[in-house]
Amino acid sequence: MNMDKPQEECGVFGIYSAAQCDVVKETFLALHALQHRGQESCGIAVSDDGVFRVQKDHGLVSQVFGQRALDALGRGMIALGHVRYAPGDELERANDQPLVIRYAKGSLAVAMNGALVNAYDIKNELQTGGAIFQTNSNAEVVSYVIARERLKTGSIEDAVQNAMDHLQGAYSMVIMSPHKLIAARDPHGFRPLCMGTVEGCPVFASESCAIESIGGEFIRDIRPGEVVVCDENGVRSFTKHCGGKSAFCLFEYIYFARPDSVIEQTSVHFARRRAGELLAGENPVAADMVCGVPDSGLDAALGYAAASGIPYGVALIKNKYVGRTFIQDTQLHREASVQVKLNVLKAAVAGKRIVLVDDSIVRGTTCRYIVGLLRKAGAKEIHLRVTAPPFRFPCFFGTDIRSKEHLIACRMSREEMTASVGADSIGFLSLENARRIAGNGVGLCDACFTGQYPIPVPEKLPTSKYEQKIIQLEVAPRNN
Amino acid sequence: MNMDKPQEECGVFGIYSAAQCDVVKETFLALHALQHRGQESCGIAVSDDGVFRVQKDHGLVSQVFGQRALDALGRGMIALGHVRYAPGDELERANDQPLVIRYAKGSLAVAMNGALVNAYDIKNELQTGGAIFQTNSNAEVVSYVIARERLKTGSIEDAVQNAMDHLQGAYSMVIMSPHKLIAARDPHGFRPLCMGTVEGCPVFASESCAIESIGGEFIRDIRPGEVVVCDENGVRSFTKHCGGKSAFCLFEYIYFARPDSVIEQTSVHFARRRAGELLAGENPVAADMVCGVPDSGLDAALGYAAASGIPYGVALIKNKYVGRTFIQDTQLHREASVQVKLNVLKAAVAGKRIVLVDDSIVRGTTCRYIVGLLRKAGAKEIHLRVTAPPFRFPCFFGTDIRSKEHLIACRMSREEMTASVGADSIGFLSLENARRIAGNGVGLCDACFTGQYPIPVPEKLPTSKYEQKIIQLEVAPRNN
Amino acid sequence: MNMDKPQEECGVFGIYSAAQCDVVKETFLALHALQHRGQESCGIAVSDDGVFRVQKDHGLVSQVFGQRALDALGRGMIALGHVRYAPGDELERANDQPLVIRYAKGSLAVAMNGALVNAYDIKNELQTGGAIFQTNSNAEVVSYVIARERLKTGSIEDAVQNAMDHLQGAYSMVIMSPHKLIAARDPHGFRPLCMGTVEGCPVFASESCAIESIGGEFIRDIRPGEVVVCDENGVRSFTKHCGGKSAFCLFEYIYFARPDSVIEQTSVHFARRRAGELLAGENPVAADMVCGVPDSGLDAALGYAAASGIPYGVALIKNKYVGRTFIQDTQLHREASVQVKLNVLKAAVAGKRIVLVDDSIVRGTTCRYIVGLLRKAGAKEIHLRVTAPPFRFPCFFGTDIRSKEHLIACRMSREEMTASVGADSIGFLSLENARRIAGNGVGLCDACFTGQYPIPVPEKLPTSKYEQKIIQLEVAPRNN
Amino acid sequence: MNMDKPQEECGVFGIYSAAQCDVVKETFLALHALQHRGQESCGIAVSDDGVFRVQKDHGLVSQVFGQRALDALGRGMIALGHVRYAPGDELERANDQPLVIRYAKGSLAVAMNGALVNAYDIKNELQTGGAIFQTNSNAEVVSYVIARERLKTGSIEDAVQNAMDHLQGAYSMVIMSPHKLIAARDPHGFRPLCMGTVEGCPVFASESCAIESIGGEFIRDIRPGEVVVCDENGVRSFTKHCGGKSAFCLFEYIYFARPDSVIEQTSVHFARRRAGELLAGENPVAADMVCGVPDSGLDAALGYAAASGIPYGVALIKNKYVGRTFIQDTQLHREASVQVKLNVLKAAVAGKRIVLVDDSIVRGTTCRYIVGLLRKAGAKEIHLRVTAPPFRFPCFFGTDIRSKEHLIACRMSREEMTASVGADSIGFLSLENARRIAGNGVGLCDACFTGQYPIPVPEKLPTSKYEQKIIQLEVAPRNN
Repeated sequence: MNMDKPQEECGVFGIYSAAQCDVVKETFLALHALQHRGQESCGIAVSDDGVFRVQKDHGLVSQVFGQRALDALGRGMIALGHVRYAPGDELERANDQPLVIRYAKGSLAVAMNGALVNAYDIKNELQTGGAIFQTNSNAEVVSYVIARERLKTGSIEDAVQNAMDHLQGAYSMVIMSPHKLIAARDPHGFRPLCMGTVEGCPVFASESCAIESIGGEFIRDIRPGEVVVCDENGVRSFTKHCGGKSAFCLFEYIYFARPDSVIEQTSVHFARRRAGELLAGENPVAADMVCGVPDSGLDAALGYAAASGIPYGVALIKNKYVGRTFIQDTQLHREASVQVKLNVLKAAVAGKRIVLVDDSIVRGTTCRYIVGLLRKAGAKEIHLRVTAPPFRFPCFFGTDIRSKEHLIACRMSREEMTASVGADSIGFLSLENARRIAGNGVGLCDACFTGQYPIPVPEKLPTSKYEQKIIQLEVAPRNN
Repeated sequence: MNMDKPQEECGVFGIYSAAQCDVVKETFLALHALQHRGQESCGIAVSDDGVFRVQKDHGLVSQVFGQRALDALGRGMIALGHVRYAPGDELERANDQPLVIRYAKGSLAVAMNGALVNAYDIKNELQTGGAIFQTNSNAEVVSYVIARERLKTGSIEDAVQNAMDHLQGAYSMVIMSPHKLIAARDPHGFRPLCMGTVEGCPVFASESCAIESIGGEFIRDIRPGEVVVCDENGVRSFTKHCGGKSAFCLFEYIYFARPDSVIEQTSVHFARRRAGELLAGENPVAADMVCGVPDSGLDAALGYAAASGIPYGVALIKNKYVGRTFIQDTQLHREASVQVKLNVLKAAVAGKRIVLVDDSIVRGTTCRYIVGLLRKAGAKEIHLRVTAPPFRFPCFFGTDIRSKEHLIACRMSREEMTASVGADSIGFLSLENARRIAGNGVGLCDACFTGQYPIPVPEKLPTSKYEQKIIQLEVAPRNN
Repeated sequence: MNMDKPQEECGVFGIYSAAQCDVVKETFLALHALQHRGQESCGIAVSDDGVFRVQKDHGLVSQVFGQRALDALGRGMIALGHVRYAPGDELERANDQPLVIRYAKGSLAVAMNGALVNAYDIKNELQTGGAIFQTNSNAEVVSYVIARERLKTGSIEDAVQNAMDHLQGAYSMVIMSPHKLIAARDPHGFRPLCMGTVEGCPVFASESCAIESIGGEFIRDIRPGEVVVCDENGVRSFTKHCGGKSAFCLFEYIYFARPDSVIEQTSVHFARRRAGELLAGENPVAADMVCGVPDSGLDAALGYAAASGIPYGVALIKNKYVGRTFIQDTQLHREASVQVKLNVLKAAVAGKRIVLVDDSIVRGTTCRYIVGLLRKAGAKEIHLRVTAPPFRFPCFFGTDIRSKEHLIACRMSREEMTASVGADSIGFLSLENARRIAGNGVGLCDACFTGQYPIPVPEKLPTSKYEQKIIQLEVAPRNN
Repeated sequence: MNMDKPQEECGVFGIYSAAQCDVVKETFLALHALQHRGQESCGIAVSDDGVFRVQKDHGLVSQVFGQRALDALGRGMIALGHVRYAPGDELERANDQPLVIRYAKGSLAVAMNGALVNAYDIKNELQTGGAIFQTNSNAEVVSYVIARERLKTGSIEDAVQNAMDHLQGAYSMVIMSPHKLIAARDPHGFRPLCMGTVEGCPVFASESCAIESIGGEFIRDIRPGEVVVCDENGVRSFTKHCGGKSAFCLFEYIYFARPDSVIEQTSVHFARRRAGELLAGENPVAADMVCGVPDSGLDAALGYAAASGIPYGVALIKNKYVGRTFIQDTQLHREASVQVKLNVLKAAVAGKRIVLVDDSIVRGTTCRYIVGLLRKAGAKEIHLRVTAPPFRFPCFFGTDIRSKEHLIACRMSREEMTASVGADSIGFLSLENARRIAGNGVGLCDACFTGQYPIPVPEKLPTSKYEQKIIQLEVAPRNN
């Protein structure tokens, strides 16, 4: 259903208003623009002069936030928003964010994107001291650590910075105390996080597209390791954890981010076009038409076409009414999603030599299906071109590339893959060129391609059932 | 809508099976029979060989647990169930039970009925040590305390007993560890809790009616202060906290419990008939007919009629299709609920002197409405008889009798009350006689009538908005 | 689930206002009070100065009419309401009423209770003339006939009267033209229909309880064959079809009607008490307690107790949270409904000789179940007393007593029945006495007991699948 | 929300199987591929050996047809499907299709796309003969006429052909009798209708994309005036009404149809590219980039770029999670839909001269909004190019181009329009060239551009409230 793509696991948003903005409405709108970063659940928390209200549930933003939910959230001065992708085995509702807690110094809400590599170590240490956990979410670990640090220091912003001494891994987060909004990004800057203004109010978002979509102005990326605080005294930046070597996720440029976002001064759309251009240089082929797998391969296909001189064309039509429908999640609906999602434009394809551009291959299943459709429609040759190197290693930083077992590139040689998907040839973008599409001078994480992790990672992801004992079932609407 | 009655705040159920029972199904059925103890939300947690699954949500048992939810819970060895009444200001979904946590020694689920009087003190102490809280529920406090005690001792049953050294107030609870089911009742036994068997499996329930409704055998009440443990070695009782003076809620006999329950060897139905008989002795009046306010006044009306010799009759017909409808909670539906809930049987009432028996008066609004209906139907005299003394003091032990402001008996003399509700006379059951209806030798809590609290209580219930900062909004179904 | 009772198939309501009333709200409230006459679907139609709006759907009144639906209906001058019971094989949504049609003279809405015995003949005749049908509902046949007659005559009230020349069978109906409200009752008056006023506006309802429940004044029954018209000129009665021998359904007194209704000057509640008294005279037995099967047997049990001198008591407690839940209609929920619906009050029953009063036995299944519960609880003897003669014949006049196959009295002798349900004895009310409970001088239909149909009936009800070809499926909410 | 586009009003599908196909499943899948032709409601009717079952409701195909609905439809030999667009004032549920009726010769189901111009005349004639109508749908008129004709002739296929003597206007329909499937297209062929096979079974669909999407083979268009019958004897074509001058809707090529459909041997995608090419020839301009308004302007933009030599680029990113959400239809959600639907790719636009290609302008509101977004993002010049002539006349053949009032081209000169939308220039495709994009030799209807209606049309569409008296309200799900 999800077209065999890796999944980003979250998007975050935060807004601080000295009364002029409807912070709940702006957050609601912004989450629509971040929906591509997570479709399983979403939430909004608001601080109304220190009284926190939160609404979160499984479903798309447009489903979870009806008029009643928005009315109940009411007005406030600060709001956080979160969209979440949940892998199949982690649908627990308890993990929905923002997480709202109360501790000795008051209330706190946390919305984060990323994954800690030392979450289990921290949890064990806290539990040994008597802590209890109600979720499987890293946000709970982060909340605990911040709450503890806050007891030892005089301000929430200091507590966040001190907490960062303990947290290892990827985290781009927005934090709300009763009267402050804080954004923090891990020292490697694995996941994106940026700031801007909406009607004069400071906002933070996972991607610039969210700020611009709601009519705001994008200002800049939050720096790796930076902590930015908004309160009645204005906006202040803390850079204690800045200065290290950054390791921004290369795959954000290739697939995760929205094309209309700008990351490290680089337009994602143009990064993808460039990937297509570089790919054409590396993997040329004689063909009649270049086409992309909709929607994510289209930008790169334009680049490939421009660089190769082969005409750009449309070969596959995507049914825009088929998608992840939260409400009807039966076997038949899943089948329907796949079966009627794509249709071939026969007249464009018959008798042609096709360059088919896609951004990645995980298991290869969707590729095989699409190549089959094109063959049936009469394509003479099909040359698959991929704007990323093959995935060979799991990601520990907040995506669902979990295990080598499912990665076609771990199981097959290039020739076997070509045969397996039924293409005439396959070409991947080299790592060297893939790294060129990112913003100039940005340190990158390419561990999923190389296995070179920027920081030490656990030997393996925990898998025994006893390590995942609490399952808070997905909430069923009335019709469960 | 709720007919101006005090509300019990919870009902609990637990079952331990060595495989022969479908523990989820039995819990689901039993919760139907406990629904009168809480209609706002409900939940079931199951331990499947140590893997916990839980489903909870706002709504009636029949709404929350559809086929999909029950299927998702699956099979297991132990299950807990909970129904919850939530006062208007505490609809937070996070407070739904059973609460499931993970701590240093594994997982734990807690379902409780009652209220701690020292919850705020314990919370403060824990928070000072770095604890964070995600709910407003006492179950979270209890879980924390048990988890901490478990670190210092060798078994969960010991931890529960040690935790009880710290907990003050009313609590009847069922606790599930990966392989054990534990029932514990506070040393005063404020709230009911009993045990029995269903198809040979030990079960615990707030009331015996739940055990019998699902075809089980009721065995006995859990003793005040008793802890009962079920595991592969069988059922064991621990009585370290037993032996003190009990303080069972007198109002359970008068109103909260279901008439088909037996508490301390006394049938609730017959206790209510007896209340009616005693009331007739204390508050005689010349009349043509005795009738009860449906449904809760009917048993006592039979007793009043029998003792007074005045014929029993039916004066009010209750519309059984009107009730608390979770789904349509609009102003118009609330109005409809009140307006078409009761109708007078004119032919029975016209020209008659009526004894109208009810179990309690809180604000007096429903009484006034009913007396008005009877007058309009031609009743000549209306003598209100109440099978309880007047409420004068708030309850700190798990009901919603919160504040003196709303209690008619705190604001008016007997004469003023009579005039206010429009009756010709009002008679209350004396405290002395009210205490006679309970099981022989049972220590009783009658603090709501007398202000004599069995244990020290806080000066007042916390009310400032900053003390209730986290509001986890009621989950809205798809239509929010 | 429905306790093995026959089912009435409909309830109707209509209101005409010269602007002072909120006709939609009053209809909405009144339908709550008629809900016992049909729980499968309901509908309201309103005429807003000749513009008709209608909302109808499967579900209880409180489910179908949320705020949005009521708002959409808006304000108007005339409104009709309908509740419908649908036998299992006729859940088609198309059959929901009121039926709204447009014809040569404008618009028309019809809501009816009853069943025509010549519907198939009329349909055939109309179809031969080119008519098409979109439902299986008699309301469509009636609409057609009225529309045709309206073409031949000068007013809708004349058309209704002329239409009645063609209609044979049971029909109590309310009809709305753009500016008139009309009530019509078949010449035998099989089903009840009465009139009253609400805030000065004329209203019609199946039962007087609906008028009184919404604060109105009940005036009188509509006479068999009478047509009453409300328009700007006031209220007028037409009696062209009056004067024949009436045949009011005896079972309305025994079971269908609500106890607080008055039919033909007779209170239904007191009719049932009288049935109990007469039953005690006819079927005496030595016993310790008389109890009723809740809820419908309770009135008669009071009468039996009074006449026999045996004390009245409570033996069975009904779970008021279990019922027909439209939303969760799975096998498990049906089982749950049955299993936890009734519980025995052991303390009241053990060692006692019980007279168990019920109003009817259809298949005997519920009786058998209840007798078993009482036996298990220790009852020494159980004497079943029924306030009606045995059902032996199908009903053609708007109830679901369809086929002899399911009627226990058609398959067994008295002795066999006694053994089958497990009672010590069974006693039925004689027909002679059953007829005595009705209003004085009312002609009665007792065909279900005697087979003496007041009018010729079809040889059999149509059953072949080709005669019921159109199945408009039950609308599923979003979760289908 | 709908981007200011005209709306097609329906899509139809039919399948006949001699048992090998799951006709309900295939129809369900095919309707997904026709969803662009109507998103308000949908329905499926199936004939199971002559027993008709039908399910229809408001909502998208994926919402209306959950597992329960599909299960309830069951298996059958023939199925019809329908998707419907409903203008704001015609949301009546009664109008949902397929319409299923019973008449003298059995049952009949009809699903149609189009609009009759003489529907009111036929209705009046039928009503004068005693007919009643329950919907505002042309399908009811068609059903009536077919039913009447069937009484005079020996077969349903003859009846359909005879009915066509009476029907004037646009109609592409599929009809199901108990054992036959019939497709019929009006003699002018206003709306598309084609045939193919799926797993060997004959199918009919509004567009070829529906057949290919479900893995079938497209065979050919149904000819204007042709009637095709499928039954146990195979597939037969009747051409009595063929041979006249066809008048296929030109706007199907420009906007309504899916790009992967083929109509009259012409690929819709390539027709649109060609429109772009012709537009570039007619309306050249010096610019830096050609971009399309997503999604419908993209094909033409490719053509414009190719013909003009100006580079094709992406300027606007569409949020694919924003759309017509049936469930949450509040003001805020509509606002959200508009506000976050499109975002500009600043990096692509800033400082550039842009050619913005769109397929049509109705009111001009969306154009103005998009031009504003581009200006704000720094576009230097914006030249709007439209692949159709301006709309100037209402459509009477099944689209929602109803009234001149809303058409910007009826209210403004070219210069005024340019100023109004804020563009630097506007260029429309000439009628001459627009007609060139269609299939060779196809007679076209271009009345919305020219006012030259192929057949006589009513003077105006009926608008008085008394002509639209019956309003069957939109069904609200449980949450109304």
